Amino acid sequence: MLQEKRIAVVGLGLMGGSMAGALRMRQVCQEVIGIAHRPETAAQALERGLVDRATTDLAAGVSNADIVILATPVRTIIKLLHEIGRLVGPGCLIMDLGSTKTAIIQAMSALPDHVQPVGGHPMCGKETAGLEAAETTLYQDKLFLLVPGRQTGPRAMELACSLVQAIGAHPLILTPEEHDRLVAAVSHLPYLLAVALVATAEDLSVEDGRVWEIAASGFRDTSRLAASGVRMMLDILLTNRDAVQEMVKRAQNHLSRLAGLMAQGDEETLCRVLDAVQQRRKELFR
Amino acid sequence: MLQEKRIAVVGLGLMGGSMAGALRMRQVCQEVIGIAHRPETAAQALERGLVDRATTDLAAGVSNADIVILATPVRTIIKLLHEIGRLVGPGCLIMDLGSTKTAIIQAMSALPDHVQPVGGHPMCGKETAGLEAAETTLYQDKLFLLVPGRQTGPRAMELACSLVQAIGAHPLILTPEEHDRLVAAVSHLPYLLAVALVATAEDLSVEDGRVWEIAASGFRDTSRLAASGVRMMLDILLTNRDAVQEMVKRAQNHLSRLAGLMAQGDEETLCRVLDAVQQRRKELFR
Repeated sequence: MLQEKRIAVVGLGLMGGSMAGALRMRQVCQEVIGIAHRPETAAQALERGLVDRATTDLAAGVSNADIVILATPVRTIIKLLHEIGRLVGPGCLIMDLGSTKTAIIQAMSALPDHVQPVGGHPMCGKETAGLEAAETTLYQDKLFLLVPGRQTGPRAMELACSLVQAIGAHPLILTPEEHDRLVAAVSHLPYLLAVALVATAEDLSVEDGRVWEIAASGFRDTSRLAASGVRMMLDILLTNRDAVQEMVKRAQNHLSRLAGLMAQGDEETLCRVLDAVQQRRKELFR
Repeated sequence: MLQEKRIAVVGLGLMGGSMAGALRMRQVCQEVIGIAHRPETAAQALERGLVDRATTDLAAGVSNADIVILATPVRTIIKLLHEIGRLVGPGCLIMDLGSTKTAIIQAMSALPDHVQPVGGHPMCGKETAGLEAAETTLYQDKLFLLVPGRQTGPRAMELACSLVQAIGAHPLILTPEEHDRLVAAVSHLPYLLAVALVATAEDLSVEDGRVWEIAASGFRDTSRLAASGVRMMLDILLTNRDAVQEMVKRAQNHLSRLAGLMAQGDEETLCRVLDAVQQRRKELFR
């Protein structure tokens, strides 16, 4: 069924470029059309063999596509959703790769009845953005969250699942609210903790510049996400404010509790808390 | 000069085992003596060729050593410093590998005049502890902080520097106060942020267990330090309370500011803050 489809990917950055390349390399569908903002990006995607055809013209790129995948920052996805309904044919599946879902699913609910929207969010990425960083194996063995809209039918969900599986990923279906709270905890909070860490070291560097010399692998890993694309992260934070703020507050409470136990010298409780966390972390990633 | 020395390493875990092995592999000195708490550890270090000789008897192990390296958790180092002065010969250099320095340097100041103490702190490690994880290349190309005590002479510092260089590391000399503030920011704060992250996800897992399924590479890296040895970290936190608490407070302030900017929708300021942090992080680790 996927074999006969023409799939258009809008946005050829890390996620879109990798998606297009994976679809093409695995010969998942009939044709992969890439739509980029800049002509150089379109040319590069074609040159790298990530797409069958590339254009900077949205209307031309999506007009005869059976599936359209929106792979831009979240607020651009929302803008695209306002115009794409009238550019695609009846029965078209419209999926996105944005990292928040409530705002996107809301925008999807305004799409005309003749299209089928499905929210998507692959749980993979790198802190380097852009087509240069794209890899056709990016999605392989990764979790791919799928979020149906109010009007999404079972056949559209089935098609979305088979697309996810065709690129080697594993689908998991969530509601928009479940999605946004879960990713706030495991993805958006880590980003803000990484930012707060770098900002704290930056404070200290004013007194003593050697702080950057001393920063070693622990600092490197804990701060890795702070190098994420700012444009992408701004869209994520601003379209998932409530859940992110809740998780920040929870993390701050844990920090206050840890600092309080240190101040009181309550070694027994501190040890119990740190032990439980260590156990959990070891179970998660062996 | 190092060539003629007998070096005793007290504590054969990750750091001590790696130190002993590096000294021996690189043929830095005349003899490497390992002192372990448990006979099995002593036997294993000998079997792996990390030491020339191994014992569980502290007095016998250090009695004719020219250099003694204390490689245990911080509070055990402090205990050992109270008894080791009378076990070693005149002129002995006593160095440690503990992750905090103010409390250790204070304990070193009570050592008898006939020994030369130097605080040491190699900026490397892994979240897996124990002799099994020891590697003779652990210190290679890493920074090695050195902190002289009040009574430490220039010849002792020279000897400590040449030992550090002999295992492939780079010495950097700091005061105890400088040391403890700097490492609180780049090492102890990241640990507590990692702990707070895992604890927050644990909170959420009570409502929705899929949180652990969704945790991907960003969560993995940001939380890595939460798997650190609890015994070691407790000693670090409890002997560096003031600096750690200051850094936690600073990080919390940054988190509050970020959350505030999100709540106000002050995109311009938020973008400026995130951009500056991204730039810094990219400069640090390319």
